[in-house]
Amino acid sequence: MQLLPGFRDLFPDDCARRNYILSRWRETALRYGFVEYDGPVLESTELYRKKSGGEIVGQLFDFKDKGEREVAMRPEMTPTLARMVIARERDFRKPLKWFSVSQFFRYEKQQRGRLREFYQLNCDIIGEASLAADAEIVALVIDALRAFGFTAHDFVVRISDRDAWLSFLQAKGVDAGGGQFLQIIDKLERETEEATARKLGEFGLNLGEVREFIAEPGVHFERFNQLAADLDARGMAGFYRLDPTIVRGLAYYTGLVFEVFDRKGKLRALAGGGRYDNLLRDMSDGAVNLPALGFGMGDVVLGELIADTPAAVEKWERWRQSAAEIYVVIAKEDRRSDAIRAVQEMRENGLRVDYPLAPAKVGKQFQNAEQLGARFAVLFGDEWPAVKIKTLATRQETTLPREELLGRIQRLAP
Amino acid sequence: MQLLPGFRDLFPDDCARRNYILSRWRETALRYGFVEYDGPVLESTELYRKKSGGEIVGQLFDFKDKGEREVAMRPEMTPTLARMVIARERDFRKPLKWFSVSQFFRYEKQQRGRLREFYQLNCDIIGEASLAADAEIVALVIDALRAFGFTAHDFVVRISDRDAWLSFLQAKGVDAGGGQFLQIIDKLERETEEATARKLGEFGLNLGEVREFIAEPGVHFERFNQLAADLDARGMAGFYRLDPTIVRGLAYYTGLVFEVFDRKGKLRALAGGGRYDNLLRDMSDGAVNLPALGFGMGDVVLGELIADTPAAVEKWERWRQSAAEIYVVIAKEDRRSDAIRAVQEMRENGLRVDYPLAPAKVGKQFQNAEQLGARFAVLFGDEWPAVKIKTLATRQETTLPREELLGRIQRLAP
Repeated sequence: MQLLPGFRDLFPDDCARRNYILSRWRETALRYGFVEYDGPVLESTELYRKKSGGEIVGQLFDFKDKGEREVAMRPEMTPTLARMVIARERDFRKPLKWFSVSQFFRYEKQQRGRLREFYQLNCDIIGEASLAADAEIVALVIDALRAFGFTAHDFVVRISDRDAWLSFLQAKGVDAGGGQFLQIIDKLERETEEATARKLGEFGLNLGEVREFIAEPGVHFERFNQLAADLDARGMAGFYRLDPTIVRGLAYYTGLVFEVFDRKGKLRALAGGGRYDNLLRDMSDGAVNLPALGFGMGDVVLGELIADTPAAVEKWERWRQSAAEIYVVIAKEDRRSDAIRAVQEMRENGLRVDYPLAPAKVGKQFQNAEQLGARFAVLFGDEWPAVKIKTLATRQETTLPREELLGRIQRLAP
Repeated sequence: MQLLPGFRDLFPDDCARRNYILSRWRETALRYGFVEYDGPVLESTELYRKKSGGEIVGQLFDFKDKGEREVAMRPEMTPTLARMVIARERDFRKPLKWFSVSQFFRYEKQQRGRLREFYQLNCDIIGEASLAADAEIVALVIDALRAFGFTAHDFVVRISDRDAWLSFLQAKGVDAGGGQFLQIIDKLERETEEATARKLGEFGLNLGEVREFIAEPGVHFERFNQLAADLDARGMAGFYRLDPTIVRGLAYYTGLVFEVFDRKGKLRALAGGGRYDNLLRDMSDGAVNLPALGFGMGDVVLGELIADTPAAVEKWERWRQSAAEIYVVIAKEDRRSDAIRAVQEMRENGLRVDYPLAPAKVGKQFQNAEQLGARFAVLFGDEWPAVKIKTLATRQETTLPREELLGRIQRLAP
């Protein structure tokens, strides 16, 4: 009876770390005026066959359910989002600014930064063709990382434009749709020069002219320059750069694309996204024709960067809550009912309160209080009908009538 | 490309409703000093074959993964919890007070209150045999429902004790382990008298003596009386009652068991749980022997009860957030950069801010602001370098220098 490879057991510390990431994501998206949606964990396999790349389809956790339907655990959000928007877009004012925080599943080889399940923040703007939407999305990806305490020294958004490459092809007289060519550019940093040169040769191109274009992208990246002006107005000048080698693996991207990397270049991409202006039209056979763009940010690589960045670790430690704020010490068992009444009263007023379920020595109870990270102990014992409040950090004590307990503790607790 | 039957698309309103339920659950468990954990969505099928009842195993979304492992999407939390506790219990102080908020999957017939995926709050105390733990768990299930605005007029916890039935069998000289007998009691309200009488006959019992025991449970339910005293000290006298017919379907329960129902008796159980003192021992072949108890509460029936209860609907409506607090109106396009700077500044200070991505008429922008539920509009236009703040509900306006905007809006917004 073991955990499956690539999956995680979230013991309380791990779970707190997950919740921290998920709540920072949510907070940032909400500040940007995005609203949350979610879709089902299980979808028809057909949805991914139609829309996702071949690589993702090969990694599906897919099977036949008890009703003989071909189903798959979701490997990404965009197909579900597209399905939902196509079904009900008329019910919503455009542009949609939607985000989700969901779990995904891919049968991949386990390695650093890659598991078989992961969480992802997905943010998309649907129904807005202007570059202002691209800027809003890139600004959001930047702020979603700044929310963890990262600065421009920790990460960078590398931005490119698929259309610039298509113009390049056109200028060179290559007429090949661009898909296969973009695959070569996508793998430029990972393949040998020989392999790349050979593949480019099939298009009648050589590595030199590609490298020249990358080094001096010039006018082809006019849209990037407009985007940059908007980001600079937001004070984000140091957080991005033009990088023509970014083209994204997925087939459906059009126009601007980007990926986010740690500055040290040690980790996989933290996030990636871009425009997919034709996806909704293609998926709905033309019925819904809305421009769209978005990004996904995963929790696994992000968690590694947090662990590697002292300022981010410190921010996480500050966010973290103790298991209880107040520990009620039952110094005499005949005061148990009175103590339980007080526990209930404080909990009903929103305080996080714990107490010993079984009789225990007073010293042991104080030990428990400290292990739980409580700030205050409240003693029910010889002082009755008074009780004693002890501030655990300072050892300061106050004795006060039981009726005054709630009021006093509410003033003391944050 | 359709949604699978029994699954849900959570459009923004549905998603907000889900998040409301999940966050109320979390808040309540945290007030009780419980800490959150989670496990994987996918487990070895073997885990459920070993531990869950036959009914649940028949409803699994199970399959062989690409590595030929037999795996299943989780149908309940207890087996995962038991596996995790057995693996690492030495690392944690007892008793464990752990909760999880997770999604589950069962291939069931769709009907009112039942889908093929659902969320559940699971709360468990592990390592405490005393009745104080039973009271803590029942109090938590009560407060987890009161958190939604329900009162003793809306729901009731029906509590029983499996051991009382085992004493009954002993007194009648029936020696049959109890499992099959408890199944008959479990189905008492759903089967015909004839069918029940025939089944009881196989144990040499008649329906009359069973009914008599139910009507006058007497001393067999001594533990219930102790539990009741603890709950009454918490002011929960009206929220529970003894009901010997509650025995719970699952095989692993020992001692106290309970289910929660709406008072009108219109819906399925809202929650259920009890003690399972032998499960960890049995699952670990004796290596980990810790008493345990807990409950699960699902979101589907709960959602129906909320919809049916005006006070609960009102509480939900109050919790709900608008998509944005502040809408920045760009009255003149040459002020767009200045407006975007202000948007960024307010967002960085935690405010939820939206603005028009594309140029639009001022009237249209105000319409957007109201549709998003914003409280304030901030105008960038002719007043520059001053800006105008408009309180949307009162139409009240203030013009102030741009530098004073953030300070002013922070005082105005909650």
